Amino acid sequence: MKNLKTQVGIIGAGPAGLTLAHWLKKNGISSVILENRSREYVEGRVRAGLLEQNTVDILTELGLANRLRKEGQEHHGVYLNFDGERTRVPFGELTRGRNIWIYGQQEVVKDLTDAWLEAGETLLFEAEATELKNFETDSPEIVFEYQGENGILECDFIAACDGFHGIGRKTLPTENFREFTVTYPFSWLGILANVAPSSDELIYAYHERGFALHSMRSETVSRLYIQVDNDEDVSNWPDEKIWEELATRLGTENWELKSGPIFEKSITPMRSYFIDNMQFGNLFLAGDAAHIVPPTGGKGLNLAIADVKHLVDGLTDFYQNNSRESLNNYSKTALKRIWRAQDFSNFMTTLFHKQGEHGAFKYQLQKAKFDYIKTSKAYATTIAENYVGLPFEAFED
Amino acid sequence: MKNLKTQVGIIGAGPAGLTLAHWLKKNGISSVILENRSREYVEGRVRAGLLEQNTVDILTELGLANRLRKEGQEHHGVYLNFDGERTRVPFGELTRGRNIWIYGQQEVVKDLTDAWLEAGETLLFEAEATELKNFETDSPEIVFEYQGENGILECDFIAACDGFHGIGRKTLPTENFREFTVTYPFSWLGILANVAPSSDELIYAYHERGFALHSMRSETVSRLYIQVDNDEDVSNWPDEKIWEELATRLGTENWELKSGPIFEKSITPMRSYFIDNMQFGNLFLAGDAAHIVPPTGGKGLNLAIADVKHLVDGLTDFYQNNSRESLNNYSKTALKRIWRAQDFSNFMTTLFHKQGEHGAFKYQLQKAKFDYIKTSKAYATTIAENYVGLPFEAFED
Repeated sequence: MKNLKTQVGIIGAGPAGLTLAHWLKKNGISSVILENRSREYVEGRVRAGLLEQNTVDILTELGLANRLRKEGQEHHGVYLNFDGERTRVPFGELTRGRNIWIYGQQEVVKDLTDAWLEAGETLLFEAEATELKNFETDSPEIVFEYQGENGILECDFIAACDGFHGIGRKTLPTENFREFTVTYPFSWLGILANVAPSSDELIYAYHERGFALHSMRSETVSRLYIQVDNDEDVSNWPDEKIWEELATRLGTENWELKSGPIFEKSITPMRSYFIDNMQFGNLFLAGDAAHIVPPTGGKGLNLAIADVKHLVDGLTDFYQNNSRESLNNYSKTALKRIWRAQDFSNFMTTLFHKQGEHGAFKYQLQKAKFDYIKTSKAYATTIAENYVGLPFEAFED
Repeated sequence: MKNLKTQVGIIGAGPAGLTLAHWLKKNGISSVILENRSREYVEGRVRAGLLEQNTVDILTELGLANRLRKEGQEHHGVYLNFDGERTRVPFGELTRGRNIWIYGQQEVVKDLTDAWLEAGETLLFEAEATELKNFETDSPEIVFEYQGENGILECDFIAACDGFHGIGRKTLPTENFREFTVTYPFSWLGILANVAPSSDELIYAYHERGFALHSMRSETVSRLYIQVDNDEDVSNWPDEKIWEELATRLGTENWELKSGPIFEKSITPMRSYFIDNMQFGNLFLAGDAAHIVPPTGGKGLNLAIADVKHLVDGLTDFYQNNSRESLNNYSKTALKRIWRAQDFSNFMTTLFHKQGEHGAFKYQLQKAKFDYIKTSKAYATTIAENYVGLPFEAFED
């Protein structure tokens, strides 16, 4: 029987849980992290790779961005294709210098895990939270299994940063929140390939054969996606067919897609999900535990870090000033950005995906939006400011 | 048998046909207008009442805006309500001084008709075009019925400014264009009432009971609308019920709706329609003959005037420089704005109408957009610049 005690019990050693732990520590608040997967699994898990300005600023402030700033790539804009025509939305010049960084989520996780363990702090891998108790009181407990034994983590607060399938949301009393969900009628077939990116910045493309996205992870690894049907099977897609389809959909004049060995291939459904109350008593949800966005806007990881910011504000106010006001408003505060991100993700998704017949009314509206981006600084700015992430002040009352 | 001859034969004495005639005359090109309705009918027909900056500039340039500028009201912004909360989008300060004017379409028609007839030009009322002939040649003819006899209007070009149900589009060879159409699942119950407007500017409102719009025609006449079902019957709506519903849906703190005698009451379906080629040979369509937008963005009349601008450019280039290039590009040029207007009208319609369940995912995205308008200057600017009408230069290549 392993018993632990801390101020904030954190479930999940993903970006949300780890950032929360580091930030609380900086503010003098102790925490322990329980992660049900192995360290190898978590650090090898391929996820997002786009960091907003806010996220980079926060990691920098916490002293956790050294490798990110050395090995990551700062992007100052994004390419948008439509029917083979290309335009570019510059970020910095439309948002007073705000940009994005390309750096794999698993690299963030590695950096934060290393720093946490090097500081002598507690993070238990393969420790599965099995029950959350007494979170409506001042003495919550997380019951967990670790190395074949049960343990209890006593804490003041539970932060469930445990993803969409985690115990956090499952434990939240159902009468306490409403849930909102949309499943889009298409999925992404995504690949990772050992080939230098064919573009210095991301390329989003609408094509009559469907959406495609050219992204990258490093100077030698490309990340690419194509829109497929929801019932598509990855086995129908040999490498050559994928590269051909990508070249067709991403194609513009005087530009060529470089291909290379594919080392990861998977299909991701496109889904929006969120709940309108992310807390109950002393249990708080952050990140994917409380919301999913389609990956089109690159918002998933960044929303999680924004949740953490608001949770840190609340917990710090509690421990330093003995006030629960900020904590009580945690969901309300976080949801403003979550709603905005849902709308932006929906916008980017419906703008670039083939929906219904190519050339029909819906297509004409998509094309009208693309043409408007080309000519309106205001419209391009709405894309830029959402893409790099709105500053926290934008959501203050 | 009444035979007439002119350079441009115009069908329809609405805003498009009349503006076209005046503008051509200014450029030294003759035209004759045939209108199948009576003068009383056309001048009494209640239609749009919102003039974009471009439209006012054009009428002013043509010397036709004297009464408009005396009796019309210039509006420098618009109020947007959501769930009883109000914000305002200022026009001039977001668009370098561009604004809208409130002045009934039938007043424009009166002014332009008076000026045309006073100048001794030809406009035949109750003259119905029954056949368009030889418009693929240099000698088109409009066959028409007038005072019980047949007549022929010989011309170089036919301009069909004859509305959605006119002969112009019906005559266009069907293999020559594709059509795009959307019927929204709601309609507008609109009223005209003898009561001073309760607001200095228009109010668009989302309410859980449905959309409402407060508009006005003059200092003593208000124009108001509420969203109703498509199968709604106007007889289900006694005056008192309408005022009650309007007060509920438009209600915000410290604001009161004034009611008064209703003298017009009607239900309008919400529809989008356009074709992707508005010309064939020497037959050209302009205005509602080629496109319909839902009234939410106030774009119908203004799109018609924009079509006319492009048609005048083409015809003037033909007569002055013997070049058909601009005429040949008429549809392509006009369609850029038409697509933009369709998208903006769709945006305003889906933003403020109740669609599906109040509070569901779609509603959350509507609310997220409303909240974003409040905080983002760029987003508010996209609404302002579309609402006052994008300058013609915005669509040049």
